[in-house]
Amino acid sequence: MKATAELQVIPLGAGVSVRAEVTRIVGLLQQHDFLLETHAAGTDIEGELSDILDAIRQIHEILHTEGSVRLISYLKLETRTDKAATLAGKRL
Amino acid sequence: MKATAELQVIPLGAGVSVRAEVTRIVGLLQQHDFLLETHAAGTDIEGELSDILDAIRQIHEILHTEGSVRLISYLKLETRTDKAATLAGKRL
Amino acid sequence: MKATAELQVIPLGAGVSVRAEVTRIVGLLQQHDFLLETHAAGTDIEGELSDILDAIRQIHEILHTEGSVRLISYLKLETRTDKAATLAGKRL
Amino acid sequence: MKATAELQVIPLGAGVSVRAEVTRIVGLLQQHDFLLETHAAGTDIEGELSDILDAIRQIHEILHTEGSVRLISYLKLETRTDKAATLAGKRL
Repeated sequence: MKATAELQVIPLGAGVSVRAEVTRIVGLLQQHDFLLETHAAGTDIEGELSDILDAIRQIHEILHTEGSVRLISYLKLETRTDKAATLAGKRL
Repeated sequence: MKATAELQVIPLGAGVSVRAEVTRIVGLLQQHDFLLETHAAGTDIEGELSDILDAIRQIHEILHTEGSVRLISYLKLETRTDKAATLAGKRL
Repeated sequence: MKATAELQVIPLGAGVSVRAEVTRIVGLLQQHDFLLETHAAGTDIEGELSDILDAIRQIHEILHTEGSVRLISYLKLETRTDKAATLAGKRL
Repeated sequence: MKATAELQVIPLGAGVSVRAEVTRIVGLLQQHDFLLETHAAGTDIEGELSDILDAIRQIHEILHTEGSVRLISYLKLETRTDKAATLAGKRL
């Protein structure tokens, strides 16, 4: 089923600036079949529910492989059955 | 001190659609001296730390006065001392 | 890899009280091989990263089948490579 | 008005372990007239809405004074008018 989400991944132990990791994470999300909207507090995602969850697993695994020691993801994940879950439908 | 934030307020008991409440909340935020960027999963805010927190209190109080029975706010709130906390500085 | 998480699922359109849905969600989590600690703002989870993400997908799908129209999950998900990710290790 | 909340404060640039900061934050919360329940993913709080928001401002200001360079708070904040907002009332 379709879902919308917001993902923010915080690397701990990477220093005060986490721009390199955030750039890498957005790059990994762009390899999927998602509609993405990156903003100041995370990236909004529209896609298949299972694909979004799988992308998060992949991001944790890949960033650890690339040297991140500790990662915390903050995810808002929304599904609905009355109409299609889209980012466009959630805008004012 | 300056802060950046992301606020999403969820009214429970208001039905499946919460568009009226979300529109009202953004309207209340616009009455403050904030830089605002509304997106699909909330509103990003740049302003004074104490003003942002006071606006959240005010939103809860006003929406309850206007009939909301149960409200949950989800807030990400960031401050830093190495440089100014701005929404622009958090974009890729 | 092992992960710790906190999950809160909010059903929209279910009325002011969401106790029935929350009880059902905790029941679904208990069917997995997780260490669980339910508290006032969600359920803390210790388990395999992929199992936790799969359980969230399953919760959304099952609750929709059972009549929930709109669901928002709020997830904190943590992994680390310097030591095992455990709930016990995160307590003060 | 009464509120319940969950607060998690993440210091960035403090290294992989953030135990010292988390211990300090819980200590600061304990100086207020709150009911507190610390768990693996944050601290649940019951108290006056305005006191909770003021405590968060104070935590950011004090931790910066004590050397923290960058802080992100993750807050869930709930109020309701149909009955008293209590941690006990949110437990299963």
